[in-house]
Amino acid sequence: MLLKNNIESLKTLVKKQNVLSEYEERYCYAQDSTNSKTYGKVPEAVVFAESIEDIQKVLRYANSKKIPVISRGAGTNMVGACVCPKGGIVLNLSKMNKILDFNPEDMTMRVQPGVVLADIKKLAESKGLFYPPDPSNYTVSTIGGSIAQSSGGALAFKYGTTKDYILNLTVVLADGSVMKLGAGTIKDAVGYHLNQLIIGSEGTLAVVAEAELKLIPKPEASRVVMAYFDDIDDAIKGVNNVIRERVFPSALEFMDKNALTTVERFYPCGLNIEKEAVLIAEVDGFESSMEKQVNCMKLAFLEAGASSLTIASSDKDKDAVWTARRASFGATAKLAPDVVTDDIIVPRTALAKMVKECRDICRKYDLTVCIVGHVGDGNIHPQVALNLDNDEEFKRYIRAKSEMYELAVSLGGTISAEHGVGLEKISYIESTIDKKALDYMKSIKKMFDPNNILNPGKIFKL
Amino acid sequence: MLLKNNIESLKTLVKKQNVLSEYEERYCYAQDSTNSKTYGKVPEAVVFAESIEDIQKVLRYANSKKIPVISRGAGTNMVGACVCPKGGIVLNLSKMNKILDFNPEDMTMRVQPGVVLADIKKLAESKGLFYPPDPSNYTVSTIGGSIAQSSGGALAFKYGTTKDYILNLTVVLADGSVMKLGAGTIKDAVGYHLNQLIIGSEGTLAVVAEAELKLIPKPEASRVVMAYFDDIDDAIKGVNNVIRERVFPSALEFMDKNALTTVERFYPCGLNIEKEAVLIAEVDGFESSMEKQVNCMKLAFLEAGASSLTIASSDKDKDAVWTARRASFGATAKLAPDVVTDDIIVPRTALAKMVKECRDICRKYDLTVCIVGHVGDGNIHPQVALNLDNDEEFKRYIRAKSEMYELAVSLGGTISAEHGVGLEKISYIESTIDKKALDYMKSIKKMFDPNNILNPGKIFKL
Repeated sequence: MLLKNNIESLKTLVKKQNVLSEYEERYCYAQDSTNSKTYGKVPEAVVFAESIEDIQKVLRYANSKKIPVISRGAGTNMVGACVCPKGGIVLNLSKMNKILDFNPEDMTMRVQPGVVLADIKKLAESKGLFYPPDPSNYTVSTIGGSIAQSSGGALAFKYGTTKDYILNLTVVLADGSVMKLGAGTIKDAVGYHLNQLIIGSEGTLAVVAEAELKLIPKPEASRVVMAYFDDIDDAIKGVNNVIRERVFPSALEFMDKNALTTVERFYPCGLNIEKEAVLIAEVDGFESSMEKQVNCMKLAFLEAGASSLTIASSDKDKDAVWTARRASFGATAKLAPDVVTDDIIVPRTALAKMVKECRDICRKYDLTVCIVGHVGDGNIHPQVALNLDNDEEFKRYIRAKSEMYELAVSLGGTISAEHGVGLEKISYIESTIDKKALDYMKSIKKMFDPNNILNPGKIFKL
Repeated sequence: MLLKNNIESLKTLVKKQNVLSEYEERYCYAQDSTNSKTYGKVPEAVVFAESIEDIQKVLRYANSKKIPVISRGAGTNMVGACVCPKGGIVLNLSKMNKILDFNPEDMTMRVQPGVVLADIKKLAESKGLFYPPDPSNYTVSTIGGSIAQSSGGALAFKYGTTKDYILNLTVVLADGSVMKLGAGTIKDAVGYHLNQLIIGSEGTLAVVAEAELKLIPKPEASRVVMAYFDDIDDAIKGVNNVIRERVFPSALEFMDKNALTTVERFYPCGLNIEKEAVLIAEVDGFESSMEKQVNCMKLAFLEAGASSLTIASSDKDKDAVWTARRASFGATAKLAPDVVTDDIIVPRTALAKMVKECRDICRKYDLTVCIVGHVGDGNIHPQVALNLDNDEEFKRYIRAKSEMYELAVSLGGTISAEHGVGLEKISYIESTIDKKALDYMKSIKKMFDPNNILNPGKIFKL
């Protein structure tokens, strides 16, 4: 609990106008993008940092007073990672939104944590370069959040996730000191990979104050193939056939019948709602390889039993397909007061079983679910439309969620592919990962943050 | 120091014939592939493990007696990571060489640590799949060593290093207990990335007993372009021009005049020894994209001032080029009793300066150096031919090495890109990485291995 004099002290550490202390100013920080009942408290202060020094001052002060610090960018995460179960200070990094350096020849970019991903992508593309991670909220989400949650997106199948594009980090530790991790080079074999420990640690080990990103050459061309199926098994067979054809699609996405119907209902765009599922595959590379790649995809999908196929070649047509895919969350949200997007991953060969049993589980608990996902990765996002204020429905949802997680783990998968654990999945971590590994994680947390001030109560209970 | 009764105890823990205790049997384990004066002692025992249980028994025993354990596969590393400065037990994992599972549909392979990389590559390719990491010793080196040193190779520019292809690990901890890290899936956002902490930790944190690898589709076609230059600056300009052309070569290699001359002298293969440098670029992808890619590379190299170009299209011609490139180490070794291969990396834009100053430094200290490297990554391997028994020459070499490292760090680079630190670079780590980061590494080491039995004295001094 912060007292009045704590607030006054904070106002002497950073610019006065960067400390929000009025209730109305702080109120919205009790939530992030997570639709959940586990909202945090309203934080007692929100402090905007404008520099590494600001971050240092706030952490030094908070550590000395043992005040929780929840670092936050755009707050777009889906697992309650930015909420404040114990109150405290929200450290808002959205003003640290400068691209500090862009070196097209080295294919690197140095950024502050508050830079929005779309700005990184746009600047890179202006020089023929590419920053691949693309969580579907990339037009608003920040690189700091991406690093904290190790976020992925549709292109992870071919291009990997955030962890694969961080060369080095400058972080501020709980005691306010600064630490640099990694080198300014593409490879680095000097000592333990501490930067990989920070990536995905959800703000619990340190605050990322600066990152140098690795960029790659932007592929010259792309095509999007949409294939409709009358049977989910066939659609998943289509996913596996692609591998056999030695094509490596940049994206391999899935929407089930409910998702198709719901998107078409609220955002009519010509989706075929008679079908059980659609696969959306993007191939990229040289223009001269497009015909071959598209033909391989067609063959893979037709052999699996695709009943109709369309190819998008123009930017306009490709955008239309991706807009439809991305509309799924917004459309599902219109079915009920709330929508909860989950994030489950299994080995690709277990995917058909996972999708069908997810639907069965939701049917059993009388829940409306639209299933979309990055099926190339084996990663699905079941989107459950419900009323969180309806306690009885909420209980049914929690039961369904537990069963989906148990199923994923029993199939060799796990309970989070790219969203993280945050608060939402904290009670499932013990049944998901090795107990010894969990114990080491806790010991590492205590080593980095002995007073437990950095985003306390997230990922695991200490 | 192991006593006679320690050896007898070991013989009761594992099969008797798996414990080597005669001096002649142990003698060769005093060295690994590192050409260096910092050889370790002859270990008091060599124990072959045949199972996870064997590893557990040896570690449990060694931990209780505080005996050093140096795990080892083929011993091909270049930094003294497998030598035994304090004696102890060499835990030989080369009998754990089974591929436990290969799942082409999931594009995964589960292996024991002693599996040779070439066997992994071959099995993957039999199903159109690809395990990209290719340290130049991949026909003999093992996956356990690759994980320990996070090894790279020529294809790292496009495809990354070992750390990018490990889905999960089963490790044995210092106390003999087993821990599983990571999931059976392509993405995993549940808790800290502990597997990335083990990868590259050179056997100092745990012994890797099993790994699941990620495979990708094998590209359909490839071409190799060789471009000769009369000036090193032009060659490096060629590297940077490639990026501008939006081509992403799978490999982008370099040999300087000395390397060309030395290979041609001992393994005549038609290299043009009149030239200052050669770039060897491999492009891969669909056959239909080859013409365009080769043309882009030609354009990039000609614009930079390449004076002659050759294209290798057939497997035979491509193999000949790569054989010439790989012959560099062996050829340089014939110039003097010993050859020391270093491993330095800088941002690509600092490469021309790094290469030229490395040559100047070696000239100043009257040392013969052949410079080769993965220049797409900014990574060079200066190969110094010398007589390590000549103390005066050795002193000159050490001075040259220090100056090269200082230069690399001053240019924003680092002292190891893919070989690790081991014993060879231990005295340079403090001037290379952040002091706080080093302190955290030491704390993590103590947390995992409180009795300091796992490959003690490597990477850093505790």
